[in-house]
Amino acid sequence: MPIPDSEFILNRDGSVYHLNLLPDHISETILTVGDPDRVALVSQHFDSIETQINKREFVTHVGYYKGKRIAVVSTGIGTDNIDIVLNELDALVNIDFVTREPRPVEERITLRIIRVGTSGALQPDIPLGAHLVTEHAVGLDALMQFYPLVETGLEVEVGAGIQKALQLDYRPYCVRGHDLIREQIGAGMLTGNTLTCPGFYGPQGRVLRLDLRQPDLIKQFQNFRYESAEGEFRLTNFEMETAGYYGLGRMLGHEVVSLNAIVANRATGEFATNAEQTVNDLIAKTLDRV
Amino acid sequence: MPIPDSEFILNRDGSVYHLNLLPDHISETILTVGDPDRVALVSQHFDSIETQINKREFVTHVGYYKGKRIAVVSTGIGTDNIDIVLNELDALVNIDFVTREPRPVEERITLRIIRVGTSGALQPDIPLGAHLVTEHAVGLDALMQFYPLVETGLEVEVGAGIQKALQLDYRPYCVRGHDLIREQIGAGMLTGNTLTCPGFYGPQGRVLRLDLRQPDLIKQFQNFRYESAEGEFRLTNFEMETAGYYGLGRMLGHEVVSLNAIVANRATGEFATNAEQTVNDLIAKTLDRV
Repeated sequence: MPIPDSEFILNRDGSVYHLNLLPDHISETILTVGDPDRVALVSQHFDSIETQINKREFVTHVGYYKGKRIAVVSTGIGTDNIDIVLNELDALVNIDFVTREPRPVEERITLRIIRVGTSGALQPDIPLGAHLVTEHAVGLDALMQFYPLVETGLEVEVGAGIQKALQLDYRPYCVRGHDLIREQIGAGMLTGNTLTCPGFYGPQGRVLRLDLRQPDLIKQFQNFRYESAEGEFRLTNFEMETAGYYGLGRMLGHEVVSLNAIVANRATGEFATNAEQTVNDLIAKTLDRV
Repeated sequence: MPIPDSEFILNRDGSVYHLNLLPDHISETILTVGDPDRVALVSQHFDSIETQINKREFVTHVGYYKGKRIAVVSTGIGTDNIDIVLNELDALVNIDFVTREPRPVEERITLRIIRVGTSGALQPDIPLGAHLVTEHAVGLDALMQFYPLVETGLEVEVGAGIQKALQLDYRPYCVRGHDLIREQIGAGMLTGNTLTCPGFYGPQGRVLRLDLRQPDLIKQFQNFRYESAEGEFRLTNFEMETAGYYGLGRMLGHEVVSLNAIVANRATGEFATNAEQTVNDLIAKTLDRV
């Protein structure tokens, strides 16, 4: 049965609603960045750019890097944006835009989606300037309240432990990323567990004029430990998107990995003065591995 | 005590971190839009534009409309962005950028913040093309898990009722907006109660390739009723930001109102073909009332 117009919304030119892309525009390997202005910092490395499309904060450049076709897409901030970007990227390859039906299983395409973003460290031993690849992502946002995400026993227990430590009304979700793409793209990087926060100020423990509902929120993030057969689990860093990527990536069947340029350390109070260089190094390293 | 650098982050030119603005740039009356491209659709009505600044999806134009100084700021999508925008707008007027301390109470400035956005109707009697002003906003997002928002008895009960109807793990928050600014700016518009969703697909009941955790989510949104001494409460429309505005607006002490151009109706399945005209009419109407 065709997906109704009100669910699968296409623009007048047939492109997908927010990303403004047609199926032919996209490649199977996709780099994503948060900041629309950062898309050009990736595509400047390309040998050629064949497509540049933008709408709202969603900027896409598609081109060739050393003979390989790559897309770079900006997502904007937060897991609500990741809901838009991952569902629409998936629709571009796995829904027939003419019949408006999902493609049969044997024709499904697995995307390789690599997030290149900035992040703050939560532990004093994660240095500024580090490149960190996310193994587990923990989401403090509410996105997975609306999807039937299946979690492992370890993931459920980590989420429950964080719920208790932070005294939240709900259990945060926890998702281990795709091992194969993490090992390939993240080789030699620090491996960590990333906390995804639904805001930049209160949800990351920053106090300007408003108090926090949980005093010492950052200390709770830093001190959280979960002991399992696999060893000690701790949260290494935080940002605002990774858990959305890993949750939707698992459900949609794509290979997704989150790479984090560490530009601040909330344990030591440091803020990188050369953040752009750290990000640019991460972009160059990533392009050579895709 | 000065707010530390890691909490109140300023750029090298002294501007606030995400919005890139200095205190002198901003006015006390602020129109906000989601889409960065929509900022120019507002400022084209100005007699003169004195400032244009942008970073990421945050575009600001400040100018004069019929002799009154007005700023228009784009926020991007979602309550995580509203956390950034409202905290930083407040900091621009209520934190001293030199001493890095909050201004004394007697010097506090109350901002007038008017959101002009698009929204989908949930009830068949809300017509496409309508302008709707939000009385109560209900947030399905997790932002208020991190702030000490104080809610009235009615607000708590509405949230608890929605939690039960939707079988959520947490109680959504509910915030009645500021009556004075709503009555002034929203005069003659439909009055409604707006549901703020933490995503566009699953959280708004749209099914592409992923199932919903709650089947019939839209029906639950539509059928929810709460009977109180003030009458029957129902949800009229949904979008992705309003509850964040109303919650942070209440806590920070600003006059905030959300205006919604109804461009879709999920009860009837209609999608407006002249959405831009509905938004442009709302912009023109709003500017004449500020």
